[in-house]
Amino acid sequence: MNNQSKIRIRWLNPIAQPHYDEPMGMALKQVANAGTEVEVVSLQSEAKMDNLEYRFYESLVIGDVVKVAKEGDVNGVDAMVIGCFYDLALEDCREICQNTLVVAPCQASMQVAANIANKFSVIVGQVKWIEQMTERAERYGYGGYLASMRSIDMSANSLQCDTQVTTDRIIEAGRLAIEEDHAEALILGCTCNFGLYEKVQQELGVPVIDPLIAALKQAEMLASMKQAFHLAPSNKWSCEPPSESEMLKFGLHSLTESIGNRFLIS
Amino acid sequence: MNNQSKIRIRWLNPIAQPHYDEPMGMALKQVANAGTEVEVVSLQSEAKMDNLEYRFYESLVIGDVVKVAKEGDVNGVDAMVIGCFYDLALEDCREICQNTLVVAPCQASMQVAANIANKFSVIVGQVKWIEQMTERAERYGYGGYLASMRSIDMSANSLQCDTQVTTDRIIEAGRLAIEEDHAEALILGCTCNFGLYEKVQQELGVPVIDPLIAALKQAEMLASMKQAFHLAPSNKWSCEPPSESEMLKFGLHSLTESIGNRFLIS
Amino acid sequence: MNNQSKIRIRWLNPIAQPHYDEPMGMALKQVANAGTEVEVVSLQSEAKMDNLEYRFYESLVIGDVVKVAKEGDVNGVDAMVIGCFYDLALEDCREICQNTLVVAPCQASMQVAANIANKFSVIVGQVKWIEQMTERAERYGYGGYLASMRSIDMSANSLQCDTQVTTDRIIEAGRLAIEEDHAEALILGCTCNFGLYEKVQQELGVPVIDPLIAALKQAEMLASMKQAFHLAPSNKWSCEPPSESEMLKFGLHSLTESIGNRFLIS
Amino acid sequence: MNNQSKIRIRWLNPIAQPHYDEPMGMALKQVANAGTEVEVVSLQSEAKMDNLEYRFYESLVIGDVVKVAKEGDVNGVDAMVIGCFYDLALEDCREICQNTLVVAPCQASMQVAANIANKFSVIVGQVKWIEQMTERAERYGYGGYLASMRSIDMSANSLQCDTQVTTDRIIEAGRLAIEEDHAEALILGCTCNFGLYEKVQQELGVPVIDPLIAALKQAEMLASMKQAFHLAPSNKWSCEPPSESEMLKFGLHSLTESIGNRFLIS
Amino acid sequence: MNNQSKIRIRWLNPIAQPHYDEPMGMALKQVANAGTEVEVVSLQSEAKMDNLEYRFYESLVIGDVVKVAKEGDVNGVDAMVIGCFYDLALEDCREICQNTLVVAPCQASMQVAANIANKFSVIVGQVKWIEQMTERAERYGYGGYLASMRSIDMSANSLQCDTQVTTDRIIEAGRLAIEEDHAEALILGCTCNFGLYEKVQQELGVPVIDPLIAALKQAEMLASMKQAFHLAPSNKWSCEPPSESEMLKFGLHSLTESIGNRFLIS
Amino acid sequence: MNNQSKIRIRWLNPIAQPHYDEPMGMALKQVANAGTEVEVVSLQSEAKMDNLEYRFYESLVIGDVVKVAKEGDVNGVDAMVIGCFYDLALEDCREICQNTLVVAPCQASMQVAANIANKFSVIVGQVKWIEQMTERAERYGYGGYLASMRSIDMSANSLQCDTQVTTDRIIEAGRLAIEEDHAEALILGCTCNFGLYEKVQQELGVPVIDPLIAALKQAEMLASMKQAFHLAPSNKWSCEPPSESEMLKFGLHSLTESIGNRFLIS
Repeated sequence: MNNQSKIRIRWLNPIAQPHYDEPMGMALKQVANAGTEVEVVSLQSEAKMDNLEYRFYESLVIGDVVKVAKEGDVNGVDAMVIGCFYDLALEDCREICQNTLVVAPCQASMQVAANIANKFSVIVGQVKWIEQMTERAERYGYGGYLASMRSIDMSANSLQCDTQVTTDRIIEAGRLAIEEDHAEALILGCTCNFGLYEKVQQELGVPVIDPLIAALKQAEMLASMKQAFHLAPSNKWSCEPPSESEMLKFGLHSLTESIGNRFLIS
Repeated sequence: MNNQSKIRIRWLNPIAQPHYDEPMGMALKQVANAGTEVEVVSLQSEAKMDNLEYRFYESLVIGDVVKVAKEGDVNGVDAMVIGCFYDLALEDCREICQNTLVVAPCQASMQVAANIANKFSVIVGQVKWIEQMTERAERYGYGGYLASMRSIDMSANSLQCDTQVTTDRIIEAGRLAIEEDHAEALILGCTCNFGLYEKVQQELGVPVIDPLIAALKQAEMLASMKQAFHLAPSNKWSCEPPSESEMLKFGLHSLTESIGNRFLIS
Repeated sequence: MNNQSKIRIRWLNPIAQPHYDEPMGMALKQVANAGTEVEVVSLQSEAKMDNLEYRFYESLVIGDVVKVAKEGDVNGVDAMVIGCFYDLALEDCREICQNTLVVAPCQASMQVAANIANKFSVIVGQVKWIEQMTERAERYGYGGYLASMRSIDMSANSLQCDTQVTTDRIIEAGRLAIEEDHAEALILGCTCNFGLYEKVQQELGVPVIDPLIAALKQAEMLASMKQAFHLAPSNKWSCEPPSESEMLKFGLHSLTESIGNRFLIS
Repeated sequence: MNNQSKIRIRWLNPIAQPHYDEPMGMALKQVANAGTEVEVVSLQSEAKMDNLEYRFYESLVIGDVVKVAKEGDVNGVDAMVIGCFYDLALEDCREICQNTLVVAPCQASMQVAANIANKFSVIVGQVKWIEQMTERAERYGYGGYLASMRSIDMSANSLQCDTQVTTDRIIEAGRLAIEEDHAEALILGCTCNFGLYEKVQQELGVPVIDPLIAALKQAEMLASMKQAFHLAPSNKWSCEPPSESEMLKFGLHSLTESIGNRFLIS
Repeated sequence: MNNQSKIRIRWLNPIAQPHYDEPMGMALKQVANAGTEVEVVSLQSEAKMDNLEYRFYESLVIGDVVKVAKEGDVNGVDAMVIGCFYDLALEDCREICQNTLVVAPCQASMQVAANIANKFSVIVGQVKWIEQMTERAERYGYGGYLASMRSIDMSANSLQCDTQVTTDRIIEAGRLAIEEDHAEALILGCTCNFGLYEKVQQELGVPVIDPLIAALKQAEMLASMKQAFHLAPSNKWSCEPPSESEMLKFGLHSLTESIGNRFLIS
Repeated sequence: MNNQSKIRIRWLNPIAQPHYDEPMGMALKQVANAGTEVEVVSLQSEAKMDNLEYRFYESLVIGDVVKVAKEGDVNGVDAMVIGCFYDLALEDCREICQNTLVVAPCQASMQVAANIANKFSVIVGQVKWIEQMTERAERYGYGGYLASMRSIDMSANSLQCDTQVTTDRIIEAGRLAIEEDHAEALILGCTCNFGLYEKVQQELGVPVIDPLIAALKQAEMLASMKQAFHLAPSNKWSCEPPSESEMLKFGLHSLTESIGNRFLIS
């Protein structure tokens, strides 16, 4: 493979507050390849949500998420990560993108996990999340790999408050997943768990997937395949995007406004 | 059951153009029960889409669809129909509603069909639709009932242009669904097919479900169960809505603005 | 919709004893629509079974159940409910009926539940019932919605003996279904549970479906669609009925004799 | 294994006409083991059906089928075959029998086929049969083995009229099943196809299962396991039969009357 | 059926140690039919494994297992049993055999169990086994019959050390399978459990399948169908074997060397 | 991420002939990352097979495949690719490896495809392959993504003979997969298709996955995660390897002998 040019990855925090952008960016910087440029963006949304614990909140940002994807698609982003374990709007973004490869943490984590274990469990924040994330797992084909989903009874935004507490609870839930549900590997079911996988892995003795790392690595791999082998999203049948002319007719020109904050690392 | 009070149904055309509101309203008037008040609304959306043929367009209106549901939930709507066969935002609307029962044409049509046939086919407008509608069917549990989905190669907006042409194509596709795929009943896979089922049914000799009728009747039934037996959406686990205080904090007060046009029949 | 004419519903208690006919009729009277005429019938069967806890007993009445359906089909019944949560002979009755829409409590309850929750549990009388009712749920496509089936260790005939005891046990099993199995709604898995749902619902805070109500409302809805839109059972492929001439040849003329007792409410 | 005593097999033609008893008996005689005594019986039923092409007809004989099973269970029958490829009342008969092992042609044929091929097709008489037989296949776990079901457009009773015609049609449908659906073996989907498998097998070059042989051999095997190792039907949970006392209370004593005709071979 | 000639069954202990051959042979002698000749063989393998608890060990003997099957196929073996509950190389042996019918304990036991119960559990030696055996069950179509797999925490080779201890543990695990998982029958999930089923069955009151017996009886039945009705493995599509000439080209002539030890009973 | 050290990938051609090693190595050289060292090896096997078109042939090399994996595991190989689209011995190699990450083309290709399309088809060489590859797809969870498998009726070894012919046939089969089966992307179902994807992609206008590229890129990604984040195969439950001492006891020391030929690129 010829010398690769720089790879441009966009990591989207799909909330309307910028405060995760820098810490997430710093976490990504530590794990990105040398040749990767990562841009962390969050949304410019009317509703100033700082979490996506509810379908309602998701529904309010999905339009902006897709616009951010489209903005990247026409501005040279090689791969975009939708930075939430619900993988919201994943199929929508893929439909609209003809150049940018779109990746999401739940699918990416499960793809990695399926390479190292036959059964895995997901440690989620709240019971509330289980039904929807299970539906995602099944859509991706990973229903048969799921040993269980287990909750630690914490909201997404509390996961980084006291990481010792969070880690302890993950270890407790993870141990039950291994012993009672026969999990062979664990996935941390929220991108806000960044920085925690190592300690859990050491303590429990099974592989523990950090979705931030899994998603970034998947994005880098697909982006490098895009550059070297013209890998691109399908635009056939269910993947067919609308025509540019119709989109213009409907007034979808100001895509840039959907981006609230940008934080660039390289 | 005591004399039922008036039932209030909201039919939402989830597009940002009002031109279907009156014809859809007239069609609904013909099929609504005596005691039903139907309000047809469409969206006040930045992007002036007149169709939802693409996931992109859906993503742009989902937030408004859910707001319209929430607006109805706090203003006495007994049941709301999301008037598109993709059933977009159905689980989202159900999460946010604590009073209003939310119904959608694909689920409603398949529930009716499962009472009269063991296998049915859906006649869709375009091949593009099939993957996403099949996913819906499988989520609702109807994957095993599906004989096939067959396309007539027409966009949603063209279905009412020349209803003779549309009907002919449906009959052609329906005949193949019956003869080759062994369908025992047919579902017209778009709410814009209103007014066409009867002729197809006469011609082909199998039951043909009009999703507009199925959804309205389901909405009336559930609404009457709400009034008489306090039937309500679950708000447990995956159905738990956000708190009112948090919603206010995020600035979700101006729900009414999501409604673009209203057309009332009774 | 034009003024609806009276709707004729037949509720069949598929046992060979009349003692449930009046109490079930009184319960139905309380929940039927104003324009609905409900006729409760039980079977004239050689074997005088008062329960269907065993497949053996079911097999002994299935022939009579289908005859009662056929009798109604030729005598103007708009919709018939097979009043047992096993939904016995449902596909058989649907095959033979060309006018009457046939409904059963398990399918009807699950269809209602799928409109208000993503996961539900069924509270059954005995562990014995679980395998067969799960098979029914899966045939209807509701396997993925099932959080669990939980037994209260009571026979069908004992459910109405001391309704306080029954209610307490349902509440106990229902609480476990919610807390341990993550049910978001409950279905009472026997038509003999009539009159109990409200207290359980108040106590547990999730929707509780009474199968008697769900089945009657579904029957009323389908019957009204029959009158207004000529909705009818499919008679294509697997739904094809035998010819009248062959049935006569086999001596199936005395359909009326299959009915043991009739109790009419209106 | 010590010298086996004689094995008693009952083959039930679940129709109310005796005319298949002798030819079926002669066919069975040719394939039974030396130590097997086969009794062919048909039903004493009010309705004189000579076929089970409709669910309605099945429903009318199911009670008698189960009574015949119970009669055999208390009178030393080692194994009973329900001689129809719909396997009607199979779970019901198994529930009621505590000694007799109950076997049916569809399950038996598919079990044999799963030992010699990874994919098989069933050649059925009419499209009408496909949905119900597919449901059976799925209940038995063989949905994944099914390459297809293909119809030869003949009723069950016509299969033995001109066996040359029948064989030709089976060969034609079987060839399509192999070439287009990639079947690796064929099952003849009706017990009335007896005597035809060999010619089809020679012509098409894949194994062809005669359900009469498969069911009898399975019955002999299970019966020998009963005699030698006390193999018996489970009577736990869903397999629990009613108590003798209750059955007597309901008047189920005259089991013998359910048998219309007997034809004994040995 | 004409007088059957002697049936030749090969039981392969797929390990590279001969010490199970005689005890397994004696156990088989007790349960074989009068006319059955059983030859017990083990492998001549470089690696002297005495167990198959690991996929690694299986991979090392699979080639020899298939050679032993082929050796039998050309030397008049009617049916071969692969004597390990993992059913290793089952599809491979079936592909290569054009005469010998190949049977394996897991598939055979589940086929027998599906004739006597609607739900069964498998009692395995170690949790390690569960994932792979569940995969087997699902391939055979028995995923839906599985109530559970429960471990007694013993290696395969320890099962015959102190059969009282083994039996006690099986009873303990089996009781939990019945009471908590609602199993209606049990399968002993290792061929080394021979001789133990009866006591467990008496103690727990549900049918208990010994895989050694189930596999031998299945082999006898299929072998008798081979002799009487020319039943043979399919060699179409996925079942197609390589040509003899190509096999010779690759040097696969010394099949006999794969057999390490032979123990003949009759 | 700190500067990555060199990544060592082993590509195993699981046949016993060296003639693919150099051409495959040259193809890999063109697509490998700058920092990747690729070693192409083939087997030292008694049977000199040059193809794996039959399960028999696979069974004969599986033991050697696993030994080569183990040899790499103790000698610093970061990731190994099993270079055959049947993904033979994948779970076995993963069990035995505690350091090396094991990747295979079918799983890798489908994981890539699931990031760019909702439905894909696999173009296989022969109908013979379909059943086994479909089973693999289902094990990996990709059954629901499969639009179809279509054969071009060529053996693996003929694919590189006249690449123009091969490409033409792939285009023909691919076009049918797109038009008739609604595939949105294609996977070339044999590693011997290297070098062909581009022309097919240009001609058909949908993404075409070359399994050689997909597997190598997946191996590089996982290997980099191993180096940077200690990603390792699980060794819990079904992934537990045998102890070193037991392996020595069984004489598994001469792992190196399983390697026949080595071809190193970097």
